[in-house]
Amino acid sequence: MNKNYEKLCEYIEKIISFRQALTLFEWDNETLAPEAASENTAKAIGVISGEYFKAMINDEVKELLLELTSTENSELDFNQKAIVKNMKKSYDQMETIPPAEYRAYNELIAKAPGIWAKAKQNKSFEEFAPTLEEIIEYQKKFAGYRRKDGQKIYDILLDDYEEGFSMEKLDTFFNEVKASLVPLLQKVTAKKDLIDKSYNYQNFDKDRQMVFAKFISSYVGFDFTKGVLAESAHPFTTNLHNKDVRITTHLYPDNLESSIFSVIHESGHGIYEMNIDDAITLTPVGGGSSMGIHESQSRFFENMLGRSKAFWVPVYPKLVEYFPEQLSDISLDQFVAGINKSELSLIRTEADELSYSLHIIIRYEIEKMIFEGNAKVKDLPAIWNQKYKEYLGIEPSNDAEGILQDIHWSCGNFGYFPSYALGSAIAAQIYHYMEKKLPVEEYLKEGNLIPVVEFLKEHIHKYGATKNTSELLQDMMQEDLNANYYVSYLTDKYTKLYQL
Amino acid sequence: MNKNYEKLCEYIEKIISFRQALTLFEWDNETLAPEAASENTAKAIGVISGEYFKAMINDEVKELLLELTSTENSELDFNQKAIVKNMKKSYDQMETIPPAEYRAYNELIAKAPGIWAKAKQNKSFEEFAPTLEEIIEYQKKFAGYRRKDGQKIYDILLDDYEEGFSMEKLDTFFNEVKASLVPLLQKVTAKKDLIDKSYNYQNFDKDRQMVFAKFISSYVGFDFTKGVLAESAHPFTTNLHNKDVRITTHLYPDNLESSIFSVIHESGHGIYEMNIDDAITLTPVGGGSSMGIHESQSRFFENMLGRSKAFWVPVYPKLVEYFPEQLSDISLDQFVAGINKSELSLIRTEADELSYSLHIIIRYEIEKMIFEGNAKVKDLPAIWNQKYKEYLGIEPSNDAEGILQDIHWSCGNFGYFPSYALGSAIAAQIYHYMEKKLPVEEYLKEGNLIPVVEFLKEHIHKYGATKNTSELLQDMMQEDLNANYYVSYLTDKYTKLYQL
Repeated sequence: MNKNYEKLCEYIEKIISFRQALTLFEWDNETLAPEAASENTAKAIGVISGEYFKAMINDEVKELLLELTSTENSELDFNQKAIVKNMKKSYDQMETIPPAEYRAYNELIAKAPGIWAKAKQNKSFEEFAPTLEEIIEYQKKFAGYRRKDGQKIYDILLDDYEEGFSMEKLDTFFNEVKASLVPLLQKVTAKKDLIDKSYNYQNFDKDRQMVFAKFISSYVGFDFTKGVLAESAHPFTTNLHNKDVRITTHLYPDNLESSIFSVIHESGHGIYEMNIDDAITLTPVGGGSSMGIHESQSRFFENMLGRSKAFWVPVYPKLVEYFPEQLSDISLDQFVAGINKSELSLIRTEADELSYSLHIIIRYEIEKMIFEGNAKVKDLPAIWNQKYKEYLGIEPSNDAEGILQDIHWSCGNFGYFPSYALGSAIAAQIYHYMEKKLPVEEYLKEGNLIPVVEFLKEHIHKYGATKNTSELLQDMMQEDLNANYYVSYLTDKYTKLYQL
Repeated sequence: MNKNYEKLCEYIEKIISFRQALTLFEWDNETLAPEAASENTAKAIGVISGEYFKAMINDEVKELLLELTSTENSELDFNQKAIVKNMKKSYDQMETIPPAEYRAYNELIAKAPGIWAKAKQNKSFEEFAPTLEEIIEYQKKFAGYRRKDGQKIYDILLDDYEEGFSMEKLDTFFNEVKASLVPLLQKVTAKKDLIDKSYNYQNFDKDRQMVFAKFISSYVGFDFTKGVLAESAHPFTTNLHNKDVRITTHLYPDNLESSIFSVIHESGHGIYEMNIDDAITLTPVGGGSSMGIHESQSRFFENMLGRSKAFWVPVYPKLVEYFPEQLSDISLDQFVAGINKSELSLIRTEADELSYSLHIIIRYEIEKMIFEGNAKVKDLPAIWNQKYKEYLGIEPSNDAEGILQDIHWSCGNFGYFPSYALGSAIAAQIYHYMEKKLPVEEYLKEGNLIPVVEFLKEHIHKYGATKNTSELLQDMMQEDLNANYYVSYLTDKYTKLYQL
């Protein structure tokens, strides 16, 4: 092994270890830790974050990365090159920021979600606006430090989440999506009462729901010898490595499908992480490739598989067994129509499959205006509300169900939202491709998901972050992201469902 | 603040933070982590343990401790002095061991519990004997490095767990206990069928048991805003700091009292940790004073409070409400007799209150023989079995229920067992003292445990490890450990219960 790479590995081991500790603290905080614990525990998290930073950013690592990316690069194998590239990118990002500013920004970001939460509670954007303004200024400044000639600030932020995805590429993508989905949604909304899903809002025992959640998660391929399922306020997935993957759900006594689909969704994220190759799991490229690819996997499981009739052929009778009182009079077809019913919502996280991307487009367009200098912070609520009216035909009655609904901006995550929509589109594209290679529907009807999961593992999962979004798609399907598949998928599905 | 002490605080912050991370990993491993996770996670634990060691043992800390224990000691306040003393003791212990030997020993200790577990499964002491021999040799060697003139090896080990408790002191204590309890136990055993507790071995729903466990834990003072209760294979208590304290229980469907008393026991440990002063919680003296004092608190809650009739006066009707089918025909008096019934066991962890100390005496006497050179490893099973016959009147039929039953020696914990018995004795002594100061029985009957917990907090809990066992007892009761109270307590109790 290259001597310098060997030295780098010592730092990698530290970096990964500290990150695992931080992940565990976060998981524990979301699922179990007592409410009074946070202040004392925060000190430990602060110290370990500091050690993590020191292990990543220091003169020796800088020197090693310099040599390993230039003269010695040819001595590295595929995984090693990817690891070095990934670390160099992180290094260059962090290094340009003056430490004092970085600290000040982190202090701001530590308290901002609290300010946001209170503002949301009070339905008052004004309370959050000054903090948001500050965060945006830091984001502009920090991106500015690493800007290359002619680069636009928002392009830099977008690239952080999805390498190679600029405004130019996303404009094309989103415009195509918008042009098709806005009129389609209008037609569907006009016939919205065609499907009755009142069965879903009966009373469902939470303990039984949890037992079913474990069954369905395992059914789609989540391996409980390498993972756990717990409850939390909001569903999420996290992992320490490929043999310790954790998902959560939130159970509502009066909404059966909420937990079912969030569990299938998080299982998709989780199975991705479980399938990452052993050779890279404890390295900086040992996670998913990008937010968009990650979301493509969760949505593939949730929507392409989980909302199809074929999927429920063997599974629905099982669900009826769990809840005979509530479901024995509901046919498979009624159930499948119900889980695909379009129900407009002002809230992104409650949006149906059809309107979801429109929620994202609104956020993308607003972020673009912010960083292109076309919108002032104080005007954002009005812009937000106007866009909801235009694209979805509904309007928030207050900031809590409008511009204050998402936590992301308070965490400094600008450029993140587009990945959600990319994920949906990539899922549709992969499904289109997979159907040409595998008899997916047959497999689903037989209750055999193994070939489907194996296919995703071989083409996507096992590579972790050694390939970026476009590389994965190209290598798999010889085609980059193409919005057509997504638009066709939704158009076909909803035309049939609503008899348009 | 003293400049050197201020510098030391930076190291303390690191040490405590790494220890919190390690505690969380351990907790997670015992309660939740998936079974396949351990190998990958062990690497992170290894790295963080290494960082923990580096933060504790290094030239600057050595220098700081030297100055703070000598010339500058008078500039420190009470807590600071205790912290410095505590760290100096740890430092001196660690420092004498050559790093290569320390590593080799840690590798041995990492695999020894696995070898022990397999030997236990195969009921074969021979399989474990060579490993045990190696561990004993390391223990002798390491204690030898820090031996002062004329000191005995086993005294050094005992002092690690209980400062100031030498063989001389323990011989006196244990001989007194043994002389009274062995004949008492024989009398009780002769009348063992006097009490019928078949009610305890019916079928009890585990979920309902868990709900009652949470109630009883909270009832005795465990504060769920600062703590959690979970399930694990063996009950234990751990904590990150005084506002994050975690206890576990193990639920048996066919044994009601097992979980009830282990929850009260662990709640005693937990309440101790919760009551440690805010000023010291994130320091090296932020835990319990010693194993013996910790155990005195858990046993105080379990035995002095939890097995008394007064305790159950307000609580037993509640328990009957949880399990009416099984308990409505069982009177309070029957129940209180049942939970105090003496049932001899070959297994220490299943021993009743009366015989428990005899299990400890056997281990103490054997450890003493090992380190005084009066027993060879290969002869230990025979010595063990002979002592069980002599003190308890029962004999193991194999090594698994004999000498292989405890994990402690495979972890290198020699000198640890006596603390369990000291805990029982201290609990009885404190109870005797408390009864003179507080109407404990009245409080229990009223269901008001607050004054009892407050009393323990003010005299013991809040001090954490700033005082050692003898200091706590002396300051509280103007008397050091005295076995009489323990012997009287058991004699009175069992004479009445068994009408001797």
